[in-house]
Amino acid sequence: MAGGILTQVAPTPQAHQNGTKRAHPPSSAKDVSAYSELQTERLEYKPALPPVLCSPLSLKQGGATTSAEHPDQIKALFPNLYGKPNVHIVADPQGKAEAHTESVKIGVVLSGGQAPGGHNVISGLYDYLQVHNPGSTLYGFRGGPAGVMNCKVVELHADFIYPYRNQGGFDIIGSGRDKIESPEQFLQAEETVKKLDLDGLVVIGGDDSNTNAAVLAEYFLSRNVKTKVIGCPKTIDGDLKCKEVPISFGFDTACKIYSEMIGNIMLDAKSAAKYYHFVRLMGRAASHITLECAFQTRPNIALIGEEVAEKNQSLCDVVNSMCDVICKRAEADKNYGVVLIPEGLIDFIPEVHHLISELNDITAAEEGPVLPDGAWREKLGDNSRGLFNSFPRAIQEMLLLERDPHGNVQVSKIEMEKLLIDMVTTELKSRKAAGHFKGKFNAQPHFFGYEGRCGLPTNFDATYCYALGFVAGALLDQGQTGLISSVGNLAAPSNEWTVGGTNLTTLMCVEKRKGKNKPVIKKAMTELNGAPFLQFAEQRDRWAVEDCYRCPGPIQFHGPSAEKSNFTLVLEQGGLQ
Amino acid sequence: MAGGILTQVAPTPQAHQNGTKRAHPPSSAKDVSAYSELQTERLEYKPALPPVLCSPLSLKQGGATTSAEHPDQIKALFPNLYGKPNVHIVADPQGKAEAHTESVKIGVVLSGGQAPGGHNVISGLYDYLQVHNPGSTLYGFRGGPAGVMNCKVVELHADFIYPYRNQGGFDIIGSGRDKIESPEQFLQAEETVKKLDLDGLVVIGGDDSNTNAAVLAEYFLSRNVKTKVIGCPKTIDGDLKCKEVPISFGFDTACKIYSEMIGNIMLDAKSAAKYYHFVRLMGRAASHITLECAFQTRPNIALIGEEVAEKNQSLCDVVNSMCDVICKRAEADKNYGVVLIPEGLIDFIPEVHHLISELNDITAAEEGPVLPDGAWREKLGDNSRGLFNSFPRAIQEMLLLERDPHGNVQVSKIEMEKLLIDMVTTELKSRKAAGHFKGKFNAQPHFFGYEGRCGLPTNFDATYCYALGFVAGALLDQGQTGLISSVGNLAAPSNEWTVGGTNLTTLMCVEKRKGKNKPVIKKAMTELNGAPFLQFAEQRDRWAVEDCYRCPGPIQFHGPSAEKSNFTLVLEQGGLQ
Repeated sequence: MAGGILTQVAPTPQAHQNGTKRAHPPSSAKDVSAYSELQTERLEYKPALPPVLCSPLSLKQGGATTSAEHPDQIKALFPNLYGKPNVHIVADPQGKAEAHTESVKIGVVLSGGQAPGGHNVISGLYDYLQVHNPGSTLYGFRGGPAGVMNCKVVELHADFIYPYRNQGGFDIIGSGRDKIESPEQFLQAEETVKKLDLDGLVVIGGDDSNTNAAVLAEYFLSRNVKTKVIGCPKTIDGDLKCKEVPISFGFDTACKIYSEMIGNIMLDAKSAAKYYHFVRLMGRAASHITLECAFQTRPNIALIGEEVAEKNQSLCDVVNSMCDVICKRAEADKNYGVVLIPEGLIDFIPEVHHLISELNDITAAEEGPVLPDGAWREKLGDNSRGLFNSFPRAIQEMLLLERDPHGNVQVSKIEMEKLLIDMVTTELKSRKAAGHFKGKFNAQPHFFGYEGRCGLPTNFDATYCYALGFVAGALLDQGQTGLISSVGNLAAPSNEWTVGGTNLTTLMCVEKRKGKNKPVIKKAMTELNGAPFLQFAEQRDRWAVEDCYRCPGPIQFHGPSAEKSNFTLVLEQGGLQ
Repeated sequence: MAGGILTQVAPTPQAHQNGTKRAHPPSSAKDVSAYSELQTERLEYKPALPPVLCSPLSLKQGGATTSAEHPDQIKALFPNLYGKPNVHIVADPQGKAEAHTESVKIGVVLSGGQAPGGHNVISGLYDYLQVHNPGSTLYGFRGGPAGVMNCKVVELHADFIYPYRNQGGFDIIGSGRDKIESPEQFLQAEETVKKLDLDGLVVIGGDDSNTNAAVLAEYFLSRNVKTKVIGCPKTIDGDLKCKEVPISFGFDTACKIYSEMIGNIMLDAKSAAKYYHFVRLMGRAASHITLECAFQTRPNIALIGEEVAEKNQSLCDVVNSMCDVICKRAEADKNYGVVLIPEGLIDFIPEVHHLISELNDITAAEEGPVLPDGAWREKLGDNSRGLFNSFPRAIQEMLLLERDPHGNVQVSKIEMEKLLIDMVTTELKSRKAAGHFKGKFNAQPHFFGYEGRCGLPTNFDATYCYALGFVAGALLDQGQTGLISSVGNLAAPSNEWTVGGTNLTTLMCVEKRKGKNKPVIKKAMTELNGAPFLQFAEQRDRWAVEDCYRCPGPIQFHGPSAEKSNFTLVLEQGGLQ
């Protein structure tokens, strides 16, 4: 049974186009005739599974586990899951796995923001079922967790899945940000899985969605519902990882797309020699994306939010250190450069964080629209008022107007790059007046976010995701629940990858949210003593003044650059020392 | 002598790294060890010259020419150049070209905004000299035309050029936007070319720079200066073209980079199903980039400035027609989509154009900063005041604050995508109140510009530019001046391309600039009866309501998509009917 499995189950385009040719494609199938040449070419890509997954397999259990923090509270919240061992998938030469050949019913849901590779998790899962549980049914829940609660579902068969193989986006079934939270919602989910008679549910999502997966798994166990729940680690932000899950999928592709753009802008900066480009990068709280893009492109400045917080820097401190670099470059007659800014920076600057929480409280109490010049300003503390007054009007308006449904400032909508340009301009004017800056400063703001979430997955993400989905199928097949699909040794070629499942409660701690203790997956922030940050810290002074710009160029699917993963992964796995 | 020429002259990386290995690279050489895998791989790419350029060659002259418009005035301005024939380069089996084997001194300058491929023009020119005029000297003027005036120059030898082969950017010698305009500046240029004893000067630039090239050529002829001047058609905007010059270089790469991003955003829009993405695209006046990106990606709406002007639409008309599409999509429960907006749109809406010119006049007369609420508003005409007052404050501030050195509004800095989002939001609110819109509208603004100007050139641009440079060398070698390097039949493979030179005055007309009649190269705008626009007009209604999104993905240098040029070129050359 080993080997050749994939060619057996993954329909080739030839088979699809010739073997099962139809006058009209089924209404559910996407029309691939509209695809670009590259989309069409990518349909044919065959991700290479780790060899262990190509043979009959069985599980090897590890020892008892504990949670990332607060073991007592997590144990109380997850009495069934807490402490259960992680598992490794191993080849089973005696073919014991053949016991698991009955057909099953599995559901899959995409949750939260898009990340390149989601479609391959689904195709990997589908292909597992084809090989090991022939005759199974795979349901896709439409529009995210809401689809689970409302039982909005579509059956995913070979023709339906084929057009999405190795493609970007989550459009196969859509995604959504709803959470299954209230007792009524858990009951709804229970009704759905019972109605569909689901043996398993695969939740593809970030930290919150995987927390939700663990809670669901625990809930189903406590209710004697047969449905097992397995999570898959998705987020371009790269903040969902642990020893067993070295990276979340989508991070590799998204960073490379942003880096292509940054590299292009660097050459523009150097060629025109008249602009500083301030590039804000998506990535929520953690600065992983900014750090990876810094390795890919070597900018003059890259701010790392976790460092700013650790050093307790004020906004002025940040601006001053940026101005120091700009002044030093001006001395070498370089009035241009590139600055990378993580989206989450604003949250890491204590005084700004404080201002925002004051604003949230004040505006919640105001009736009607809150305008920048309103009397409410008097309610701000002195520090916050001074800070608010120092901001340009456009930023003041953003802070007041861009609010989420809960009335909170939407940090991701604050154009931090424009605020920093404004403050740097002001500071450089005063340095110029004092004779400490003789250069010129003109800047262009950029924000890269949505561009990176739905790109064609890199060979790495395509292969990684396919394995994640295949493993999720295997874990369900082995009766596992409450685990996150785990593929390890990822810095090596895929034929050396290890596979298994990690107890989701091992990633958890307890946090206060809306006044209540809630179990959450601890976000993996940039470690200031980790290999990536240390390497960066070692090199950045040279990058600041010399032009060490590196242009990764567009993602390639053939050739020497196509099989490279990313700097962060390799450094964290102990490479490139 | 035919064939094998390129392998003879283009240094291979192996030759560079092994054959001429040095302990320290020469100080002028760029350090390629810092290159990404893809940059390094691209150094090895060998653009395929049209076969005619691989043999001894001679010129075939066409008939007498005239200018695009105003022949009498152009004739008066260019008494030496006007009417001279265009030339075709043909193979010369008798080897007459061997007469031209003396060494020469040639200068090259990059002028204006960056466009992918500029480095290949220079390497093509260099390689021509190596083959046909061994022992020649190639000078690069640093920082654009200012380098010509100030004789800031560097000698471009093989080691110097090698690291830039097939790379993006203009950083080999930099670029600049200065113009050689005043009598003193012409004298400075004359001094430079005499000092360097230049036989020829190659000007790589857009419409203004090529106009400048023609004026210089005419000036040198009138002064009996021996230096010949040849232009090369550069601009991502695609507005410098004519029958003999089917496309300007850089357009292909830039559009594909923007289209990669747009395609990704489309899948995001469809997957999340909650945002309209308003994407403003660089491209100055003409809407060629927007039109090409529309073919590449099939957005729901793509505004074409030339059509808006032709139909004399107001800003409200534009907003209303966008809202019509959004309402129609909402009926199909699609509250998402992608809208493309050409940077130049603002100039094409008559009422906005009028407001801006009133603002330019008024603010020029004001002393001190002009604030949105100032009394100067009374000086605006009623229509303009009404329009200005209707804008959100951020846009008002942009109109007042973003000014070029001449005090004029910098149209390219107006965030038109945000203005349109604001106006669409307002209009949809009133439609909702009237019961004509039942959907939701949330939007994300984007601007793509600098990302596309310095990308790694596509195989098309790399090959096209290499030929342009090679041809420029040949034209100079044949004693030609006042021509633009012309490569034709570009929709065919490069072994079918035709090559020659086009009299720059054939592209010219006279325009009033700053009260004076000036010769200018007539900008090639989007033709509303041209094949690209007609095809677009035929398809856009379907694109508006259905999701026909096409994702071109990242530019590839290998595989089926690597050798494709672009829709605009192919349609204009009579293909894809």
